[in-house]
Amino acid sequence: MEFGSFLVSLGTSAAIFVVLMLLFTWLSRKPGNVTIYYPNRIIKGLEPWEGTSLTRNPLAWMREAFTSSEQDIVNVSGVDTAVHFVFLSTVLGIFACSGLLLLPTLLPIAATDNNLKTRSKNATDTTSKGTFSQIDNLSMANITKRSPRLWAFLGAVYWISLVTYFFLWKAYKHVSTLRAQALMSTDVKPEQFAILVRDMPHPPDGQTQKEFIDSYFREIYPETFYRSLVVTENSKVNKIWEKLEGYKKKLARAEAINEATNNRPTNKTGMCGLVGKQVDSIEYYTELINESVAKLETEQKAVLAEKQQTAAIVFFNNRITAASAAQSLHCQMVDKWTVMEAPEPRQLIWKNLNIKLFGRIIRQYFIYFFVAVTILFYMIPIAFVSAITTLKNLQKIIPFIKPVVELTSVRTVLESFLPQIALLVFLAMLPKLLLFLSKAEGIPSQSHAIRAASGKYFYFSVFNVFIGVTLAGTLFNTVKDIAKNPKLDMVINLLATSLPKSATFFLTYVALKFFIGYGLELSRIIPLIIFHLKKKFLCKTEAEVKEAWYPGDLSYATRVPGDLLILTITFCYSVIAPLILVFGVTYFGLGWLVLRNQALKVYVPSYESYGRMWPHIHQRILAALFLFQVVMFGYLGAKTFFYTALVIPLIITSLIFGYVCRQKFYGGFEHTALEVACRELKQSPDLEEIFRAYIPHSLSTHKPDEHEFKGAMSRYQDFNAISAA
Amino acid sequence: MEFGSFLVSLGTSAAIFVVLMLLFTWLSRKPGNVTIYYPNRIIKGLEPWEGTSLTRNPLAWMREAFTSSEQDIVNVSGVDTAVHFVFLSTVLGIFACSGLLLLPTLLPIAATDNNLKTRSKNATDTTSKGTFSQIDNLSMANITKRSPRLWAFLGAVYWISLVTYFFLWKAYKHVSTLRAQALMSTDVKPEQFAILVRDMPHPPDGQTQKEFIDSYFREIYPETFYRSLVVTENSKVNKIWEKLEGYKKKLARAEAINEATNNRPTNKTGMCGLVGKQVDSIEYYTELINESVAKLETEQKAVLAEKQQTAAIVFFNNRITAASAAQSLHCQMVDKWTVMEAPEPRQLIWKNLNIKLFGRIIRQYFIYFFVAVTILFYMIPIAFVSAITTLKNLQKIIPFIKPVVELTSVRTVLESFLPQIALLVFLAMLPKLLLFLSKAEGIPSQSHAIRAASGKYFYFSVFNVFIGVTLAGTLFNTVKDIAKNPKLDMVINLLATSLPKSATFFLTYVALKFFIGYGLELSRIIPLIIFHLKKKFLCKTEAEVKEAWYPGDLSYATRVPGDLLILTITFCYSVIAPLILVFGVTYFGLGWLVLRNQALKVYVPSYESYGRMWPHIHQRILAALFLFQVVMFGYLGAKTFFYTALVIPLIITSLIFGYVCRQKFYGGFEHTALEVACRELKQSPDLEEIFRAYIPHSLSTHKPDEHEFKGAMSRYQDFNAISAA
Repeated sequence: MEFGSFLVSLGTSAAIFVVLMLLFTWLSRKPGNVTIYYPNRIIKGLEPWEGTSLTRNPLAWMREAFTSSEQDIVNVSGVDTAVHFVFLSTVLGIFACSGLLLLPTLLPIAATDNNLKTRSKNATDTTSKGTFSQIDNLSMANITKRSPRLWAFLGAVYWISLVTYFFLWKAYKHVSTLRAQALMSTDVKPEQFAILVRDMPHPPDGQTQKEFIDSYFREIYPETFYRSLVVTENSKVNKIWEKLEGYKKKLARAEAINEATNNRPTNKTGMCGLVGKQVDSIEYYTELINESVAKLETEQKAVLAEKQQTAAIVFFNNRITAASAAQSLHCQMVDKWTVMEAPEPRQLIWKNLNIKLFGRIIRQYFIYFFVAVTILFYMIPIAFVSAITTLKNLQKIIPFIKPVVELTSVRTVLESFLPQIALLVFLAMLPKLLLFLSKAEGIPSQSHAIRAASGKYFYFSVFNVFIGVTLAGTLFNTVKDIAKNPKLDMVINLLATSLPKSATFFLTYVALKFFIGYGLELSRIIPLIIFHLKKKFLCKTEAEVKEAWYPGDLSYATRVPGDLLILTITFCYSVIAPLILVFGVTYFGLGWLVLRNQALKVYVPSYESYGRMWPHIHQRILAALFLFQVVMFGYLGAKTFFYTALVIPLIITSLIFGYVCRQKFYGGFEHTALEVACRELKQSPDLEEIFRAYIPHSLSTHKPDEHEFKGAMSRYQDFNAISAA
Repeated sequence: MEFGSFLVSLGTSAAIFVVLMLLFTWLSRKPGNVTIYYPNRIIKGLEPWEGTSLTRNPLAWMREAFTSSEQDIVNVSGVDTAVHFVFLSTVLGIFACSGLLLLPTLLPIAATDNNLKTRSKNATDTTSKGTFSQIDNLSMANITKRSPRLWAFLGAVYWISLVTYFFLWKAYKHVSTLRAQALMSTDVKPEQFAILVRDMPHPPDGQTQKEFIDSYFREIYPETFYRSLVVTENSKVNKIWEKLEGYKKKLARAEAINEATNNRPTNKTGMCGLVGKQVDSIEYYTELINESVAKLETEQKAVLAEKQQTAAIVFFNNRITAASAAQSLHCQMVDKWTVMEAPEPRQLIWKNLNIKLFGRIIRQYFIYFFVAVTILFYMIPIAFVSAITTLKNLQKIIPFIKPVVELTSVRTVLESFLPQIALLVFLAMLPKLLLFLSKAEGIPSQSHAIRAASGKYFYFSVFNVFIGVTLAGTLFNTVKDIAKNPKLDMVINLLATSLPKSATFFLTYVALKFFIGYGLELSRIIPLIIFHLKKKFLCKTEAEVKEAWYPGDLSYATRVPGDLLILTITFCYSVIAPLILVFGVTYFGLGWLVLRNQALKVYVPSYESYGRMWPHIHQRILAALFLFQVVMFGYLGAKTFFYTALVIPLIITSLIFGYVCRQKFYGGFEHTALEVACRELKQSPDLEEIFRAYIPHSLSTHKPDEHEFKGAMSRYQDFNAISAA
């Protein structure tokens, strides 16, 4: 890519960003859009503009973002969001600190050498076919082999690594404190009083699963056991309940239409309301609801009596016992009565709870294998796509676009963006698949499944996007050599030598992501349009309108690996083409700012995992650093720098650093430390309410005074009566 | 080695064994030797011959051994000993079951082939320089390359593996039950009420370590915390106490002499009682004792007040809380307030308790590295020794033994035994070093250190004895090739091809170990002689006599790896030279029998770890099986057998089997399961007594009514008084 088209793409992106930001300023002031730009506040019952200035200053939102404290974020959006900001600011810190030292030193060192000129003059050197631009002059590609200038670049690797260790250590400590504080909270949280028990053996004859678990835990915790909630097979009752809810919505809708038009709506009873008898909607749905309620009640009783499974939530009357019980081995045979901290009620993946320990392990390994294969072979369609989307190829395939393409401006823009857009589209298809696979592992909670999916996505994107794109150019020439004699050092060497050629591609990729990505994020153009369309044509009831603007959460499953990919790219190019640090700083700085706004005003978290995402992020930042060090080892080696081996101590240090961090901090994220769980509560907890929080919607009765939940309820009182007698 | 000398060595060993057994029958009936042959019973206060027949039948002890039940062993010698018998009988079962099928099938198949004859006839085949004997005719060496007979040997590998899985699974389950039963015991055991806390942070200003720990645990366990015992720096007080004990012994000795001879003994005050002033011993030592007692009391106070360290034993008033506390994370920072189950008081390694977590980790890795280096380079002196100890070389070095050596009988015996004896002597030097290293890792309990040492010794002996001896012959020819191009498959191949040549060596080695080893073990000739010498010339007091006959424990640190080495050897030759199965069965059968006698009548266990040795044994049996499978893969490959790859599924199965066993059982050995800890006790525990059990001798006061242990004692009463006020 030439320098001109690079500047054009940068300029275009920046212009689009400015337009989107202005659009945001304008649109967000309109009262009709308040549910799109301040949904978080509306749900919390706050005044949307409370405390914010109403001036048309387009930078007002920035000031608000800057002045908000971490505690504000925790209060509004929970610990997980606060941890995400720690992530953004940590990476920002790493890149800023690195850039401050590296840009003023490395750029002049690179610019004043003349490797590229020499090479292009030297006609016998057939290996350097690549064109070079002004950008390449500022990169390590311009350094002559064996040059003593390489010392500076080696030093840069050290500097970046040390800065990273420092910031990561500080961040882990900080997040650990955040988590501890949240867990120490004096508020009653149901999940802190419960544990999840799985792999229960078959009960002895004459006992139900429920009685068995009660007697088991009452023996171990005679004073602190409260009651248990046996997991049941709910697929049928869930279906009935969903139908019932559907009918209720339709009834509400029919009533709303009736009210608005004074015209009783009708519908057909057949498939999709298109065929069958014409009936009065309100009567029809009322009848269906009554039928379903009766069915639901019968099925609820059947579920509780007959469909008890081998898992349960067990409740204790204090937090310490629950925290300690979740960490203790209960059964001499480790694959029976396994325990763990109960996830929040809203994030329990109910249907995974019955899967047995070895079933989970087998599923996990099977899925790891499947994902590994996917990662390896997803490269093939990507390579195919990026081959097609070069302009010349497109012209061959779709000849009629030729006249359009030959306009210089269009051509330049297309040339800069096409491959990147193809890549982005391709990547957007994957997350759902990975989340589905992660849930199929048998993971019991939503947040854990999202962490697992996010991890897979990270490895996927690093392997396919970064390594894939980098190697794509050179791979086909050398693939035969590698196939003949596959050796790790050859792969590293290959990666290292092809890196500089892709530098400009990635500069553009990062710029595209932050200008367009964050521009769209901030302006919320797409949700806005969808909302207005829905509101106009579809929504009839208040509930439907609310559903249309409900913002959802920050969607860590794709956001975190996306950011980590940028991080990996920036790391790997930070010394080879230090200019990328500027882009990295902009990406994470802008990201912090925009997301701060969105976290405060837009998104509503859908779960709280008390920062358990952090160890994953930490580990992957380190993995990126590790990759960077390995690549630099290869690249310095390719420059035949004599002291390349000095990178090795750094690689070992990274491994030790990761090990020490894991030893020191990870346990506190895996379990709740007892010193944290033993804090006093504001008020004594309502255990019955905690218990009820875990009853699935489809099983809770509809009459509010009847929360007996008979079959699965602990006969606590009965037992006490017997033991007293 | 020729067949003749093999038979001679076998015969000699068997004869020695019979002689030793008869000696045992004769000596053990003499009342003066009762303390050597029945010390266990004497210490327990039982009649030595109670329930045993007094006939001179030399096989009576065998009947007694056979009729004793596992429960007898647990009662007399504890779970650890019972687990050792499970180990012996499991291996016995594996070899017996394998032998029953393999001997009748493989031996004829091997004997009727004629590879060796063909090869020795074939003069052009220069690679087969080795002599072959009748034994080799019964081994796989006699099978022609590519022969379909190899199918039988492949089948044998499968049979042995399946038998091993079956027996190991059964044994792990059984040991797990044994452990659970022992932990469920209704007796009060101090270690079940305590946890060991390490890595305590610095106390806040104005608090002692002791006050800090009390307040920390009282907050987490307000109702179940009893008190704590802070670990102190005892080196100085220990020295004073040891001196005091020495003086007491000398005083008792002087008084005994005085009584016996009516002659007041005197001694000199200088070095070793050889120089200095002549004094009356009784007066002199009485005075020294009084001095030391005063010193001890001063130092005790100083230790408790000033030398508190960052570790403690914390006591709870019930077993469940202690078991649960030992498994729970207490501090958000994982490297602070680390907890584990308290070891028994008698096996605490007091001086290791103060070492910090990362200190322990660093020590561990450093020692692993050091041991790995030792293992690798111990081979050099061993190779040197076995080169020297061949008879020809000995004649060259020490020419004057020539006439002796030329006597045919002497020559044959020496030729058969010399290398093996050299090996045994060499190996005997190592265990102390390994135990010392294991303790230096910072391990807090004796039993754990012994497990660690035993593991190291196993890897050492397999690597050096088995692989070392096997390769020694062929290594020097091929070492250059390997050095040029080191590849794993080459090493395996080399190992596989050199195995058959050493078969006879190992047959002799195993026979030597069981005939001579168990003969000496049973007859206790050496302890008997030492005891009688000591009694005659040294012992004056009753305590000194008891010290002279005190039998010690089974010494697992060397016994287990020794047995595992035999197991490894037998496994690896089981298919190549199936005759070794007979020797393996004899070794473990005889071992079971002799040790049963020793466990019931002789040895006194020095600790109880509730069978925690088993996972180590299990893992190493599997490792031996794994090595066997790999070797067979190599050997079948060396025979250019086309279906050699069929061994690979077996190797993978071994890995999966190990993983599943670990998942299912290991947790129950690592921690105490709560369902086990929650059983009722026979009587409510005397917590004060439990607490006192952990006070080291040197710190307990000498007046029995004064157990206050001030500085390090919890001010439980004070605290209650304050909080009640």
